[in-house]
Amino acid sequence: MTTPPTVDDLAATLDALRARVPLVQSLTNIVSANFLTNVLLAAGASNAHIDNAHEAGDFARIAGGVLVNLGTPDDGTAAAFTRAAEAAHEAGTPWVLDPVGVGGLAWRTSLAADLLHHRPTAIRGNASEIIALAGLGGDTRGVDSADEAAAAVPAALALLDRAQAVSASGPVDHLVGRDRDGAIVGLRIAGGSAMLPRVTSTGCSLGGLVAAYLAVAATPLIGVATAHAHVAVAAEIAEENSSGPGSFAVAYLDALYAVDADTLRARARLEPLDLPTEDTK
Amino acid sequence: MTTPPTVDDLAATLDALRARVPLVQSLTNIVSANFLTNVLLAAGASNAHIDNAHEAGDFARIAGGVLVNLGTPDDGTAAAFTRAAEAAHEAGTPWVLDPVGVGGLAWRTSLAADLLHHRPTAIRGNASEIIALAGLGGDTRGVDSADEAAAAVPAALALLDRAQAVSASGPVDHLVGRDRDGAIVGLRIAGGSAMLPRVTSTGCSLGGLVAAYLAVAATPLIGVATAHAHVAVAAEIAEENSSGPGSFAVAYLDALYAVDADTLRARARLEPLDLPTEDTK
Amino acid sequence: MTTPPTVDDLAATLDALRARVPLVQSLTNIVSANFLTNVLLAAGASNAHIDNAHEAGDFARIAGGVLVNLGTPDDGTAAAFTRAAEAAHEAGTPWVLDPVGVGGLAWRTSLAADLLHHRPTAIRGNASEIIALAGLGGDTRGVDSADEAAAAVPAALALLDRAQAVSASGPVDHLVGRDRDGAIVGLRIAGGSAMLPRVTSTGCSLGGLVAAYLAVAATPLIGVATAHAHVAVAAEIAEENSSGPGSFAVAYLDALYAVDADTLRARARLEPLDLPTEDTK
Repeated sequence: MTTPPTVDDLAATLDALRARVPLVQSLTNIVSANFLTNVLLAAGASNAHIDNAHEAGDFARIAGGVLVNLGTPDDGTAAAFTRAAEAAHEAGTPWVLDPVGVGGLAWRTSLAADLLHHRPTAIRGNASEIIALAGLGGDTRGVDSADEAAAAVPAALALLDRAQAVSASGPVDHLVGRDRDGAIVGLRIAGGSAMLPRVTSTGCSLGGLVAAYLAVAATPLIGVATAHAHVAVAAEIAEENSSGPGSFAVAYLDALYAVDADTLRARARLEPLDLPTEDTK
Repeated sequence: MTTPPTVDDLAATLDALRARVPLVQSLTNIVSANFLTNVLLAAGASNAHIDNAHEAGDFARIAGGVLVNLGTPDDGTAAAFTRAAEAAHEAGTPWVLDPVGVGGLAWRTSLAADLLHHRPTAIRGNASEIIALAGLGGDTRGVDSADEAAAAVPAALALLDRAQAVSASGPVDHLVGRDRDGAIVGLRIAGGSAMLPRVTSTGCSLGGLVAAYLAVAATPLIGVATAHAHVAVAAEIAEENSSGPGSFAVAYLDALYAVDADTLRARARLEPLDLPTEDTK
Repeated sequence: MTTPPTVDDLAATLDALRARVPLVQSLTNIVSANFLTNVLLAAGASNAHIDNAHEAGDFARIAGGVLVNLGTPDDGTAAAFTRAAEAAHEAGTPWVLDPVGVGGLAWRTSLAADLLHHRPTAIRGNASEIIALAGLGGDTRGVDSADEAAAAVPAALALLDRAQAVSASGPVDHLVGRDRDGAIVGLRIAGGSAMLPRVTSTGCSLGGLVAAYLAVAATPLIGVATAHAHVAVAAEIAEENSSGPGSFAVAYLDALYAVDADTLRARARLEPLDLPTEDTK
């Protein structure tokens, strides 16, 4: 008998975020840096963007959580990624790998492979990135978009050798990790909005929010699930209050700020995810 | 008898963008990276910001269009600009040069001169940048702002030695290029809003949108013209729905999303541009 | 008898900004680059983000004011900071140092110490950064947030050896500098909004606005005070017109644009700041 995260687990974790205001260290791309920070501030965390190799390692030892996002790496930030990941792993700071573009681009795919050695606490990506990162076949063309997150579940399970929780974003997000007894469990989180892919950095900023929730959650999977649910509920609310991608982005930040534990209890849409038996033994 | 682009050409090109959702590779400055991506997503394209020298060339071979914007170059991105431009030219990927600050700043002026060897499909800039890039005299002080885009027409025509279409942004945008028979033609596109210069990156993101439209347009000039008209109409609509530069930027993204082929037909303001006879032979 | 800036001084300086539209050169972090530029454009200035070592020095000689913000330095921008500060000091261009993260992070603390040799016209930071920069004790933990800007006043006074005006941001901003007769004076500026810390880059963009106002103000302290007051009044207005951090940021840009000299006279909340006698002799 396994025990996937419940909506009460998530509500308690959101309350913990608001009470403790964890400090995230983000190493993210130049497209998302501003929006990601605003997402963290709106949700109830704080953020410092320390992405130079001189300082990234030291800061990762004192941060509440660290995000390493491969969106726009250069030689300088790539060195900082390694320092931050290494220091986070050594110091026990939870850290998140967001493997943007892995699979399609050779250099960053090699960076991601190196970073896996420092054992990210969580990995968040879209389906093709999760599949590529797991090395289960790089050609994800032809994956139907409605099914894509589901298609990444075997890859996500394979990555549990390296990380404690893995999520694949899509119209319905798919998450895998371990329950409090160490058993592998899965979770689907529905909701969100068709407007999310029309606003850049909604995915990258979810990665930052995962890092924030890892700092306060009882288990990595609960942390990842709370971030996904917070975002999905906020996006639903934002869609009701907007008339296009510009006003959606504004309403989304307002909604991330407004969503509280009661909102999450009322609106979060969690479903258990049946896992292939051979993977859950 | 020459045939400049018509509003029906533009409407068909907007429909093609929405149907094909071209993938732009942007190499742009850190000020505009987020807004430019949101402009592309709102308009109906997609974007990947691949600006490191390790990956920029490979990606330019598979992208639908490439933007090279000189806003905030450093040694690393400057190398990536060259790789992307070279690969785009070799692979036949349309690419856009946005010569931000060229003329007033020596290093990037030299970068721009080098990039011209890789024959951009289109060049988009403000009047002083187009004039400086053409080497027709760097001192653009004293150019009256109302006339500035018109003042750049001789320079734009001169740049048709290197590029297939050139546009100078201003209160009225001025565009030159070739029609389907290879004859040089010009076009003025009015509209827009006095609020556009009050929001940063509206010009840079237009450059990105040009790259998107080049991926689907029948000719480079039609692609450039559709981008300018889409933006001009969206800005007019945004001005009607906003009360300052903050709300204008939000309404502008909503309007880029809402404008369709019928809106473009109803509101785009194209006028033929009489060209000096010696340049049109 | 000392004469701190009055609200009439500030109103006249805002009018001067609108009349002269000074050009700021910003060297700022990747989180704030877009928002900072929008703040400057909305307030009535213009901005060029020139942060490479090839061009930063030359541009600092012709800019109206220069901002050096230590938020996300790397080896390349650190070299540009030095060139810009050095050139600004030599050419008499006013420049602002925003010591983001100084004290807590070793590398940038050393960068900041070097930059002080080029004598910034003004320094703007939060209390812990001002205290760390002055070398008056790095451990600012335990400083109560309501008092924090007041706690930085001795450090700000010590920094008047290097800069002509120093401000510490907080719920009430604290500023020190010299009056027209060279006497040291202090000023408190209340107002603002509890929503400001929920939107990233509101502090960094204030640093940019200080650089803009230094270009047109009668004294550095009047320039710094006008920037702080413009921002405080705009934030109050924005809070009245928003329902969360997303809509606050939009309303804030609209308000920066709408605030004029009369608004400033009616709503700016200046109070003289009593200084320790030994520091005002």
